[in-house]
Amino acid sequence: MRQALHRLTIETNGQGLTDITRHIRAWLAKEAAGTGLLTLWCRHTSASLIVQENADPDVCRDLEAFFRRLAPEAAPYRHRDEGPDDMPAHIKAALTQTQLSIPVEAGSLVLGTWQGIYLFEHRSAPHRREIVLHWLGE
Amino acid sequence: MRQALHRLTIETNGQGLTDITRHIRAWLAKEAAGTGLLTLWCRHTSASLIVQENADPDVCRDLEAFFRRLAPEAAPYRHRDEGPDDMPAHIKAALTQTQLSIPVEAGSLVLGTWQGIYLFEHRSAPHRREIVLHWLGE
Amino acid sequence: MRQALHRLTIETNGQGLTDITRHIRAWLAKEAAGTGLLTLWCRHTSASLIVQENADPDVCRDLEAFFRRLAPEAAPYRHRDEGPDDMPAHIKAALTQTQLSIPVEAGSLVLGTWQGIYLFEHRSAPHRREIVLHWLGE
Repeated sequence: MRQALHRLTIETNGQGLTDITRHIRAWLAKEAAGTGLLTLWCRHTSASLIVQENADPDVCRDLEAFFRRLAPEAAPYRHRDEGPDDMPAHIKAALTQTQLSIPVEAGSLVLGTWQGIYLFEHRSAPHRREIVLHWLGE
Repeated sequence: MRQALHRLTIETNGQGLTDITRHIRAWLAKEAAGTGLLTLWCRHTSASLIVQENADPDVCRDLEAFFRRLAPEAAPYRHRDEGPDDMPAHIKAALTQTQLSIPVEAGSLVLGTWQGIYLFEHRSAPHRREIVLHWLGE
Repeated sequence: MRQALHRLTIETNGQGLTDITRHIRAWLAKEAAGTGLLTLWCRHTSASLIVQENADPDVCRDLEAFFRRLAPEAAPYRHRDEGPDDMPAHIKAALTQTQLSIPVEAGSLVLGTWQGIYLFEHRSAPHRREIVLHWLGE
């Protein structure tokens, strides 16, 4: 049983979903991972992780729109110092995932056919985001 | 330290919660699991995992109703090709869990007295769903 | 590779967020944890875990207010026997986390600078809550 850690840096273009599945697969291949558990940790409270359909790009657009309606910038928040998009960002992060642990079988993530792993940027401006990858396996 | 993988297949009856705790316990017993970590991964983006009260069935009905109000079929989604229930299904999956990792102590899940593990089907029609179980422990 | 289990008990003061990060760090230090994976499991369905900003206390207040608006006590729930705050509590638990797995590098949680781990109490009355900590690492 072996462990490995990596910090994946993703540059975002403001609010929206970025598919990071290929970066994860590339690191597993570089580490010659066999069977084990891969944990992703997003080191932010205004960006998060989400598993979604990777087939129709409209699914991502609809998800972004849903979360904008659910946590609108115009709501009466106390926390306003970091801009009107910051508190909605914290809410959206709370409603999605900061962490995902994905079983890996003989080097392959056990994702379903239509599953992709996405970084969900909640701030309006582009940001540099860091995700820790932790491998534990054979 | 030992690993094991299994694919659990669940037949759903359309929208709603199915308690899968006994299937998980049965597999742990079959594997003679001791102390370790059990990870569940739902291989779908229109069904998900949820931990809920297993005492009053009305809790499950109220949860289903809450999510139907939160992500109604009648909202103006772009993604419509797979039916009016598909985009709400993706939203509900995003708001709940695709993955759960449960500590196991001497063969027993460390669930609270009233906790059950449920598969949450979000599509209207019955579906065959697959959950990967990954065991890592002694 | 080594495992350890612990039950952390937290006394809450009714609805709201309690920062439990220092309790987690204290246990890791006591266990002389090196590099590995720490899993937290909340043994309740009316309290949950959440990762949030630990800088401005207004973020916690805004989060609490958001979830109260999203799952109000006044909604037409069937499940009423345990009080008007119980069904909203189950909904809020479903929308946040029952479990978190955090990579640990050389004894330190890989949290971002502003990330704190919170127990989110959803019931109105103070409660005694139990969180299982599971360590797997070197």
